[in-house]
Amino acid sequence: MDFNEHTATKAVQDSFAGTHDPRLRELLSMLTRHLHDFVREARPSVQEWEQAIGFLTAVGKTCTDTRQEFVLLSDVLGVSMLVETLNEKEGGTESTVLGPFHVVESPPRALGDSIDLVGEGQPCLVTGRVLTPAGTPIADAEVDVWQCNEHGFYDVQQPGIQPAGNGRGLFLTDAEGRFAFRTVTPSHYPIPSDGPVGRLLEATGRHPYRPAHIHFIVGADGFIPLTTHIFVAGSPYLDSDAVFAVKQSLIVDFPESDDAETAARYGVSAPFRHAEFDLTLADATG
Amino acid sequence: MDFNEHTATKAVQDSFAGTHDPRLRELLSMLTRHLHDFVREARPSVQEWEQAIGFLTAVGKTCTDTRQEFVLLSDVLGVSMLVETLNEKEGGTESTVLGPFHVVESPPRALGDSIDLVGEGQPCLVTGRVLTPAGTPIADAEVDVWQCNEHGFYDVQQPGIQPAGNGRGLFLTDAEGRFAFRTVTPSHYPIPSDGPVGRLLEATGRHPYRPAHIHFIVGADGFIPLTTHIFVAGSPYLDSDAVFAVKQSLIVDFPESDDAETAARYGVSAPFRHAEFDLTLADATG
Repeated sequence: MDFNEHTATKAVQDSFAGTHDPRLRELLSMLTRHLHDFVREARPSVQEWEQAIGFLTAVGKTCTDTRQEFVLLSDVLGVSMLVETLNEKEGGTESTVLGPFHVVESPPRALGDSIDLVGEGQPCLVTGRVLTPAGTPIADAEVDVWQCNEHGFYDVQQPGIQPAGNGRGLFLTDAEGRFAFRTVTPSHYPIPSDGPVGRLLEATGRHPYRPAHIHFIVGADGFIPLTTHIFVAGSPYLDSDAVFAVKQSLIVDFPESDDAETAARYGVSAPFRHAEFDLTLADATG
Repeated sequence: MDFNEHTATKAVQDSFAGTHDPRLRELLSMLTRHLHDFVREARPSVQEWEQAIGFLTAVGKTCTDTRQEFVLLSDVLGVSMLVETLNEKEGGTESTVLGPFHVVESPPRALGDSIDLVGEGQPCLVTGRVLTPAGTPIADAEVDVWQCNEHGFYDVQQPGIQPAGNGRGLFLTDAEGRFAFRTVTPSHYPIPSDGPVGRLLEATGRHPYRPAHIHFIVGADGFIPLTTHIFVAGSPYLDSDAVFAVKQSLIVDFPESDDAETAARYGVSAPFRHAEFDLTLADATG
């Protein structure tokens, strides 16, 4: 029988019958059904479909080693956050999106080091612990952090202006599960908006901004790795994050402090800002 | 309220409330719902989603001025054919997919010219008429044709081997609605399979072949443009076209002929193959 509106989906699903990996076959079968359902409902004209193909092609061509426009597209359609949410494990700190800027490895640093290699902004101290769901500290947990600077740019967006590795660090918690690093308070910022995703946001009247945040990936043997942010309380755009990533539990105060003892211990000059919070990992066996 | 599995779709749809173009808003709202439904049903792991992003990125990066890997992806998922089918107008010759090889303009040629600039294969004559639904010939209709050579390659796939414009031609029908050109009988061929779409086909146990065909776009004032193929009767893969484009009504005999009068009129040497068929355009006002 000819391929038509009614026979199309089964014909394509049947074509995947020889797929060796059963999970791939399942994913392709579901994708085909939902994609065809979309097309049958939306009934795009041939020109509209060509425009869609042109858009996707432009998204792919915008990707470089340090820019991931397809992650951005997934982000602004809420898909990245939905995938993250569906994979969230009970018992740990809430997760949020990886985002498109984890494109270089974070340089290993010692506890208390500064990830701000420029030193122009107001100092900010970030301290906390990595804990089990029962509240027991986890020693030697890996804490991978990355953030933009006080002007809203990641190092990879400003090669030659920011030193490579600025705003990035890979730490191991101490025997009490503690991590600590010096930085500058990150700014809210627009996601890269000079490409096709930016044009989509403009066409839909959406702003490209994300509220200020610091990214974390935390891992330890026997626990589920956690990908999350902490958001700076009071930042603009907490209620309209372009990538839908804010969770109330992840908003952390960054109060100004002039505590002399802390300043001396971490080698920062007062007044400094200080964010203190704990990150809980879900048990891998839980 | 936090973004979660249940709030996600409305949150993203609401973000498109400021879209100026109502059709764009409608398309994005439908896309969001179907895409989120897919993700909620498939529940991809974060790694699976990253693999999907990596695949789409590779598809985009494979595109060049003369290769459209996203069209190929749309083709092998049956989406191109579904879009074409949904847009088909009653009363004309059945349509089929544009495909990824209409990437250069076809050179204008006179009726009876050869689109085969190499001259090594058995000659083939293609003749026919462009008609209204009532069967009235349409003069000065534009007939844009493109095809691969007898070895299964389009000119743009073999720069330096085939002359540019080989297998392509743009014709105008005569006062009786007739078109005619000389060529070689196209071969069945694999769609480009050295890229990510080829890897997808391999992983799913699908062959990459298309049955032999000649592409047409036919247009005339007052009529709906027609994008279609004629398929060579007896070609392999007529029942398993990698892009689902075969319709029974588009299969045309290419019998061998030694008709001396026709050979003389068109300047071909007998024996030659001869495909004769009419193409009907649907009325733009119908």
